[in-house]
Amino acid sequence: MVYLAEFVGTAILTLLGCGVVAGVTLARSKAEGSGWIVITFGWGLAVTVAVYVVGQYSGAHINPAVTFAMASIGELGWAQVPGYIAAQLLGAFFGAVLAWVVYLPHWRVTEDPVVKLGVFSTIPAVRSIAANFATEVIGTFLLIFGILGINANMNPIGAGGGGLQDLFGTGFAPLLVGFLVLAIGLSLGGPTGYAINPARDLGPRIAHAVLPIPGKGSSDWSYSWVPIVAPIVGAVLAAQVYVLLGFEV
Amino acid sequence: MVYLAEFVGTAILTLLGCGVVAGVTLARSKAEGSGWIVITFGWGLAVTVAVYVVGQYSGAHINPAVTFAMASIGELGWAQVPGYIAAQLLGAFFGAVLAWVVYLPHWRVTEDPVVKLGVFSTIPAVRSIAANFATEVIGTFLLIFGILGINANMNPIGAGGGGLQDLFGTGFAPLLVGFLVLAIGLSLGGPTGYAINPARDLGPRIAHAVLPIPGKGSSDWSYSWVPIVAPIVGAVLAAQVYVLLGFEV
Amino acid sequence: MVYLAEFVGTAILTLLGCGVVAGVTLARSKAEGSGWIVITFGWGLAVTVAVYVVGQYSGAHINPAVTFAMASIGELGWAQVPGYIAAQLLGAFFGAVLAWVVYLPHWRVTEDPVVKLGVFSTIPAVRSIAANFATEVIGTFLLIFGILGINANMNPIGAGGGGLQDLFGTGFAPLLVGFLVLAIGLSLGGPTGYAINPARDLGPRIAHAVLPIPGKGSSDWSYSWVPIVAPIVGAVLAAQVYVLLGFEV
Amino acid sequence: MVYLAEFVGTAILTLLGCGVVAGVTLARSKAEGSGWIVITFGWGLAVTVAVYVVGQYSGAHINPAVTFAMASIGELGWAQVPGYIAAQLLGAFFGAVLAWVVYLPHWRVTEDPVVKLGVFSTIPAVRSIAANFATEVIGTFLLIFGILGINANMNPIGAGGGGLQDLFGTGFAPLLVGFLVLAIGLSLGGPTGYAINPARDLGPRIAHAVLPIPGKGSSDWSYSWVPIVAPIVGAVLAAQVYVLLGFEV
Repeated sequence: MVYLAEFVGTAILTLLGCGVVAGVTLARSKAEGSGWIVITFGWGLAVTVAVYVVGQYSGAHINPAVTFAMASIGELGWAQVPGYIAAQLLGAFFGAVLAWVVYLPHWRVTEDPVVKLGVFSTIPAVRSIAANFATEVIGTFLLIFGILGINANMNPIGAGGGGLQDLFGTGFAPLLVGFLVLAIGLSLGGPTGYAINPARDLGPRIAHAVLPIPGKGSSDWSYSWVPIVAPIVGAVLAAQVYVLLGFEV
Repeated sequence: MVYLAEFVGTAILTLLGCGVVAGVTLARSKAEGSGWIVITFGWGLAVTVAVYVVGQYSGAHINPAVTFAMASIGELGWAQVPGYIAAQLLGAFFGAVLAWVVYLPHWRVTEDPVVKLGVFSTIPAVRSIAANFATEVIGTFLLIFGILGINANMNPIGAGGGGLQDLFGTGFAPLLVGFLVLAIGLSLGGPTGYAINPARDLGPRIAHAVLPIPGKGSSDWSYSWVPIVAPIVGAVLAAQVYVLLGFEV
Repeated sequence: MVYLAEFVGTAILTLLGCGVVAGVTLARSKAEGSGWIVITFGWGLAVTVAVYVVGQYSGAHINPAVTFAMASIGELGWAQVPGYIAAQLLGAFFGAVLAWVVYLPHWRVTEDPVVKLGVFSTIPAVRSIAANFATEVIGTFLLIFGILGINANMNPIGAGGGGLQDLFGTGFAPLLVGFLVLAIGLSLGGPTGYAINPARDLGPRIAHAVLPIPGKGSSDWSYSWVPIVAPIVGAVLAAQVYVLLGFEV
Repeated sequence: MVYLAEFVGTAILTLLGCGVVAGVTLARSKAEGSGWIVITFGWGLAVTVAVYVVGQYSGAHINPAVTFAMASIGELGWAQVPGYIAAQLLGAFFGAVLAWVVYLPHWRVTEDPVVKLGVFSTIPAVRSIAANFATEVIGTFLLIFGILGINANMNPIGAGGGGLQDLFGTGFAPLLVGFLVLAIGLSLGGPTGYAINPARDLGPRIAHAVLPIPGKGSSDWSYSWVPIVAPIVGAVLAAQVYVLLGFEV
């Protein structure tokens, strides 16, 4: 059930996340041109919905960077890491396919191939690998600090309390994590489109590569390692610093 | 009281929901042109308000697709389904009439008849029945997954817990369901305007057909079956898959 | 303390409420032109902040229509009504004066006198007294239904529960009432600017009349009775219908 | 740990806060031109995230004006004030440096030096020292009233209750304080950009002065004392008035 939960949760994440970018950027969508506030609310609430659906089964990491971070501080056994990540990648791919279906008539009427790729994967506003890498590291660092902080702050109602699974199984924590992602998107998303999640970027990029999208261009594989490596670096670093500084997990 | 609650709840839903589309699209409205973020927040909070008012009496389905889904997994007796749906349809009609009253001076000053219909019913951005059908199926699928997930996640304060009625009678669950609808609207609403609710579409469409709206055009009955059938298909499918996958109701 | 609380709460309401309209509409404001989503969030959160500050002392009606509605169903003694309303009016006047101070340099640089009045009082988009009256009745009707519904839905933590004062003294109810006002603004505010509160409209209108605002025009007294009478009619009607339908207070 | 917490919290505040202004105003950012709703949500949620991470250790003042206000009514020992403020200033500086890193490629492609300063520090829309001072006093006054009101309204779950530390260590209070800052920004931010926090303005201003930003202009030191002195005046005044009026701390 744990891996099924990660699959479903990550599929919900990219269905809603890729969906909101499609809505704002594809031609003739009713949400066309509605801007950054729509995109960031869409991604933030995508996390919230995903965590409400599957949080109590797997902790709803839905992000390999979170999985690595949790494993690095002993909140998840390393043996579970490969299964988590495989499920997340498959889920992210599947969710992106669903988003493609939802916006099926809009691919043909949209001209710009870069816009089409942007629905699936992140594209830096100004391409500068070192800077883009740093942006993703800092964004994911804050994601982990925020998740751990929310976790430590909550008093799970009717539970002994403790790990992430307890957190996400209670109350409004999934809403708070969604607002955390909203905050990161609003403030730190401008330069790279805030992947902060390797599965969210790679799964949909593979979908972009294999799906029959009319007039699509390159899947931009040369950039693809940045939103994979940088979030993992930022996440593990954050978890280590958080514990080192003496904050409660 | 159960059917009265469904009537009132669905009336609130379409009063606020049709109201926000009127506000954003009718000429000379103070909210004219304020865009997708206003429309999606309007519909999301319409659900929230409706559920706060009537949730503890009927579970606040306010949506025949939700009613079918709940009945299909034994959360509602089939004998109650016709009453629920009749009340929802009547309420949706009545709420749309109220929205028409609220914006009374704006019908005459608005020229485009398609805009006027759009206040009442959904109109696909690109007409493609199969694709539009799929979009509504997926959107409603996620609605049910989200409602069931929120339901399972909540620990109703001071209650033994369990069914949907318990959920909606407590705390901030109605806010969460409103945010779920907001998420679906933001991300999946672009192609069809997200009916995801047969009553929300059919009730106001009947209102559009019978009300004396100056310069109104067709009520577009040829499309009207899609936002009726597709949400029911998506909702029942979602409830079955949810249970099949082993998620807790 | 009860009347002081109503004074302070209503002053916060109009400081933030008139403030947000000033921010969006006055020339050279950093928020100039940011639109309906800003205005409606501003007014909604104005209610939230006001209720958090004074809710536990007076129930934070901060609105004569709410006061009349509560008195009409026995939730407030009629003897307290005059004191509540006087405090609300004085507070609304004082808050508007503060908003005028906050935006002091912007009155001179703004040309249109209608924009200046619009910061203080509501102005119908299309002047049609009967229709405008109906719009305000329906909006305030829903406000009362929502407040009573939220009230009945909440389980005040650590309290026997019951009246409105209990509600507002606990948890996140003030946030919910703010979202209710946000919902009404988003959906029903387009035609009249949603006064739904006689004090919110009259207090600032008096401030507009007496303050030395450069280049101000008429205070539009001919319309001023609508946002006074209609909200009271709608609110009392709502409270009566709510009880009549058998909903729990 | 107390001072470390203030350092980290204020760094998160300015990383996200300066970050959102950078995102909305710097050239070629994906959030460019997304306006006031993005900026105000960004700053509001910056507070929320910061308080979730460090609230239970220091009360998460992250603002010297809050620290002075709390000390003035006996909620914090005066001996701790210098440490709090030093940590806040250092944190605010460090967070601004991080925001500069996040948007590294965008400084060179942005032309206007005033836009660049605006990412770091507040700049009045219409320069009028007395009026700007009053705006900041009123904004910070409301911040303190709101914090104290939220504090008094909450029933900390599982705690005896009382001071600010208890508040921020529980539940959704950090979200409410973020919405309070959102409300102040939406409604009162138009004239001065709402510093309402000396550290938030001075720390990033120093960062602007020392960082190698291409094409940067003056750090506008002549205005810099206003967002330092006015918030402290407003905050201490608010705390005194709050107690004087008999409201519960």
